[in-house]
Amino acid sequence: MGPDTENNGDSVASKLFGTLNGFMRKFLFRILSVGPVPNHLAFILDGNRRYAKKWKLQEGTGHKCGFWALMSILKYCNELGVKYVTIYAFSIDNFKRRPNEVQYVMDLMHEKIEGLLKEESIMNQYGVRVYFIGNLKLLPERVRVVAEKAMKATENNKNTVLLICVAYTSTDEIVHAAQESCQHEWDEIQAMKASESNDGGEIISNENQEEHRFINLVDLEKYFYMGVAPDVDILFRTSGETRLSNFLLWQTSTCLLYSPRALFPELGLRHLVWSVLNFQRVYPYLERRRKQV
Amino acid sequence: MGPDTENNGDSVASKLFGTLNGFMRKFLFRILSVGPVPNHLAFILDGNRRYAKKWKLQEGTGHKCGFWALMSILKYCNELGVKYVTIYAFSIDNFKRRPNEVQYVMDLMHEKIEGLLKEESIMNQYGVRVYFIGNLKLLPERVRVVAEKAMKATENNKNTVLLICVAYTSTDEIVHAAQESCQHEWDEIQAMKASESNDGGEIISNENQEEHRFINLVDLEKYFYMGVAPDVDILFRTSGETRLSNFLLWQTSTCLLYSPRALFPELGLRHLVWSVLNFQRVYPYLERRRKQV
Repeated sequence: MGPDTENNGDSVASKLFGTLNGFMRKFLFRILSVGPVPNHLAFILDGNRRYAKKWKLQEGTGHKCGFWALMSILKYCNELGVKYVTIYAFSIDNFKRRPNEVQYVMDLMHEKIEGLLKEESIMNQYGVRVYFIGNLKLLPERVRVVAEKAMKATENNKNTVLLICVAYTSTDEIVHAAQESCQHEWDEIQAMKASESNDGGEIISNENQEEHRFINLVDLEKYFYMGVAPDVDILFRTSGETRLSNFLLWQTSTCLLYSPRALFPELGLRHLVWSVLNFQRVYPYLERRRKQV
Repeated sequence: MGPDTENNGDSVASKLFGTLNGFMRKFLFRILSVGPVPNHLAFILDGNRRYAKKWKLQEGTGHKCGFWALMSILKYCNELGVKYVTIYAFSIDNFKRRPNEVQYVMDLMHEKIEGLLKEESIMNQYGVRVYFIGNLKLLPERVRVVAEKAMKATENNKNTVLLICVAYTSTDEIVHAAQESCQHEWDEIQAMKASESNDGGEIISNENQEEHRFINLVDLEKYFYMGVAPDVDILFRTSGETRLSNFLLWQTSTCLLYSPRALFPELGLRHLVWSVLNFQRVYPYLERRRKQV
């Protein structure tokens, strides 16, 4: 029985077990914290549908189970002191799935975000700040509105930052950033031209324009949707898959990729602990790589 | 004894063994070809230095062994009908390694590329076209010159395309493409302005400029160094590592990631066969994903 089911359990025994569980977990995290603790974990939520099939559950129940697994993980991250958690909730490509599945996920998203907005929400209890990341214009209006409300409502929470990628792909993020950088350069040149002609000076020469059109890495990163978080330390892809599926391609080049066989709803404390131990093992190497970049 | 050592062996027995080996390999490949054969394999050449340490070899010998492993792999790919092979030979970040190691790798690269330029070269024998991919301006002049000569010398070969990433990182490739796209848009606007003022017409309005500044995904991909090849089917990262290390981030979002424990110089036929079997297993899934994108 996971600690996330505490509220459902009505017997003293189950409460006691939950408390004991929580105590042991905190003790475990205290030991883990002797080594370097990852700052940013990212999750590809893979296997919700397969979980429903495996246990012959109704369609959609897999996603619900996935949501509860996510809540537990979020709690553990908070206890362990992980500052940033990013999840790949919905890809732009997912809009091409069967309409009733898309509808179901959008409904679930709407329902859960509305849940966040309630004061008793686990988000405020644990001081979680929420960002919705991606091309939010692609979401149905009602989902976009509650998403924006939730970002506003949690903006003062300081413990953990939860980044929920919806209507996101890495390639879309990069193209968006390239557009924005180009636009910015253009605006700067226009502004410079305007100020020069106001000063009665010569129109800016082609060579000067050339200089100002240079887009560099920092420019591009400034316009990333994920710009609010540092690079990822551990990327979890459940179901034993190792493909990145167009998720955080830019932000994961020096991270540990961890692919447990578990389906997402089966992801638990043991996977988190194991990944952190692995992270600690390769930490000196990752640090060297980061300094090289 | 690998088939790549045939030329060194002087006994009849070794020749016979080599022939038998080659015959069995071709038979194996014939069976494999019943299923879908990958079109593009990419390799992160990881573990050359560790290989030298493991066998207490002189510094640099690991890279030489890696080179011979690569030649075998290239031969197998050619026999199996894999059209594109990409290798991560030298990252931009590698320039920050110890100067004598950088020097050694550059010397080795220079020597091997010069080898390619000889008529008897394995490249012409197998009809391999070579591209050097990356920001070639960062290479020492003498290496850049022979690299360009080798591209020219093999441009009529049609069987296999070998893409050697030198002075490459994915982020550099993306920034470069963003710059080029932006520049291209800018040039188009300038040309349009010029033609409009030549026609005695009005200077182009701001709204029209806006329309022309839009960078999309196709624009960006057009300017990728890797634009000459299709997306990757299998990415090999030897030494059991699963990080992408800033290599082909854009081109690997729907590929199979295969991470054998072997160090690069140990990579052999069995790894190739195993990866292709795995590719064939997940092929229907990868195809579905590609159609979604």
